[in-house]
Amino acid sequence: NSKVKIFALNSNKPLAKKIADAVGVPLGKTSVDRFSDGEIRINIEESIRGDEIFIIQSTSAPVNDNLMELLIMIDALRRASASTINVVMPYYGYARQDRKARSREPITAKLVADMLEKAGADRVIVLDLHAAQIQGFFDIPVDHLMGAPLLADYFLKNGLEKDAVVVSPDHGGVTRARKLAEFLKAPIAIIDKRRPKANVAEIMNIIGSVDGKRCIIIDDMIDTAGTITLASQALMDAGAKEVYACATHPVLSGPAIERLDKSPIKKIIVTDSIQLPEEKQIDKLTQVSVGPLIGDAIKRIHENKPVSPLFKNRFR
Amino acid sequence: NSKVKIFALNSNKPLAKKIADAVGVPLGKTSVDRFSDGEIRINIEESIRGDEIFIIQSTSAPVNDNLMELLIMIDALRRASASTINVVMPYYGYARQDRKARSREPITAKLVADMLEKAGADRVIVLDLHAAQIQGFFDIPVDHLMGAPLLADYFLKNGLEKDAVVVSPDHGGVTRARKLAEFLKAPIAIIDKRRPKANVAEIMNIIGSVDGKRCIIIDDMIDTAGTITLASQALMDAGAKEVYACATHPVLSGPAIERLDKSPIKKIIVTDSIQLPEEKQIDKLTQVSVGPLIGDAIKRIHENKPVSPLFKNRFR
Ligand SMILES: Nc1ncnc2c1ncn2[C@@H]1O[C@H](COP(=O)(O)O)[C@@H](O)[C@H]1O
Ligand SMILES: Nc1ncnc2c1ncn2[C@@H]1O[C@H](COP(=O)(O)O)[C@@H](O)[C@H]1O
Repeated sequence: NSKVKIFALNSNKPLAKKIADAVGVPLGKTSVDRFSDGEIRINIEESIRGDEIFIIQSTSAPVNDNLMELLIMIDALRRASASTINVVMPYYGYARQDRKARSREPITAKLVADMLEKAGADRVIVLDLHAAQIQGFFDIPVDHLMGAPLLADYFLKNGLEKDAVVVSPDHGGVTRARKLAEFLKAPIAIIDKRRPKANVAEIMNIIGSVDGKRCIIIDDMIDTAGTITLASQALMDAGAKEVYACATHPVLSGPAIERLDKSPIKKIIVTDSIQLPEEKQIDKLTQVSVGPLIGDAIKRIHENKPVSPLFKNRFR
Repeated sequence: NSKVKIFALNSNKPLAKKIADAVGVPLGKTSVDRFSDGEIRINIEESIRGDEIFIIQSTSAPVNDNLMELLIMIDALRRASASTINVVMPYYGYARQDRKARSREPITAKLVADMLEKAGADRVIVLDLHAAQIQGFFDIPVDHLMGAPLLADYFLKNGLEKDAVVVSPDHGGVTRARKLAEFLKAPIAIIDKRRPKANVAEIMNIIGSVDGKRCIIIDDMIDTAGTITLASQALMDAGAKEVYACATHPVLSGPAIERLDKSPIKKIIVTDSIQLPEEKQIDKLTQVSVGPLIGDAIKRIHENKPVSPLFKNRFR
């Protein structure tokens, strides 16, 4: 009966601590720092021979550093005779580079999968992949967790599901919106972007009724927040009572914080899949933790129980 | 008969230009920049179907960014039907992590080799690897070029081989020192470092005669310059007339520049395997270019000629 050990790298130590607490084990002892020239130096400071290892690392910015930390850690653990190496990536960087949209583009999401396997990962645990197809980039087991139930929980606890309509900011996100709408027992609406000509601003058509409603926009991630803030304005213009936004991954790069601040969005609910520096923790933004969700998944993996139905139990 | 195309990534464009000039082809058209969140975006801007590609990239600092650029570029080229993908790494980052010196350490130099192969490299061309054994980390052909003849050339052209003794700063570097000494027809000396007790400064014994001589220290790289500056002082104390230092790779991290500036070293000769920012281009430091050497290697690979004897031809 092998021991569960959880190791945190540098991208998201607060979340790693919450996961370890949920599992009921201390974080493994390791130091992950830099040599003088910037190369990553990893030292695992306890024996892990024969242990069942879970590494917690989001490949958020700085994505290349965080990814290399992860790969080097996997290498070190494998050479130190870990029994199994489970890679927990609450945020999977490069997920948007998941297909060749044009000629001569890389498919970096697949490259990342190949690198993880080649380094020696035995299993990956991910949360709301940008495209579910990325699971197929791996030949090892992938557990795909969902943040929607946690986001739903926030709205339910605060009585915000009444008069609500869940809004998908584009056609690609309708499945995600339907999932949240189920939890909230709310209808859905879809924003239909059309660009009449090249270099002309997009027109936002709203499919579905939002007049007098509390609109809850949902997306998998908020990066520069362009889509979501434009959508919120379109919804207000169409007579929405108020607009909320939610997403699993708070990437929040470039102008995101300024845009969210200025937008008519009342509140933005995200998870802690990505650790936010202080300057990004604005009043409007609430982070709900995926620590207990991931902790449960780890316990179930350890006990050889299926992981996917997990989130359903919480809401029935 | 496939076409040779040379692509430069971001680590060392001036060297890539020199290599392309030596081969007599223009640099391939590509853009390598960043998305808003810091993820690498690569666009190959010309058809490369069926071509023989050479990518020029040193994995110097920022090592993780430069390595990921390289891996993503290989992925993009492979998916765009390159005939062969040859990776030219004038500086091979993580080369010092080439064995487990202690328990539970990674062997990152092997991880890098695995990543390059998995991404799709068909051949690598490297220059003065920290350990020649790293060649064995690859299952694809490796051409291992040497900087010593170029460094020797500098001393010969400036008439500095007279009264010279070539000094290896440690026991690991004796082979390298002997190679340079052969070119200069000079004797060698070795610095023998001993630490009498833990936490006590090392004592530098000099094996060989340096009194009244022009000492030329040679190493594969100068990183923080601790070894080489201490050695230069020990050599002066032992009666050396003057001290020169040379190395293939100017890593020059942390206190390196300050130490070199303050040391009794008269001149430091390095190559352009690593591009130096302006603040590191001090008067004492001379860079000789490996552009023609690598250009020759590329031409010979294209013509199916052996690459290793290359450097010998230059000096006989
Ligand atoms: N880090 C990134 N930031 C912004 N756009 C990206 C990023 N990575 C990939 N993309 C682009 O986003 C598009 C995919 O987005 P989507 O249509 O939402 O799946 C592709 O055209 C990619 O080139
Ligand atoms: N980037 C680096 N900077 C300084 N030391 C390193 C670096 N990478 C690895 N090392 C250490 O350098 C030693 C190998 O150096 P060497 O004995 O010269 O081959 C090992 O103990 C490594 O842990």
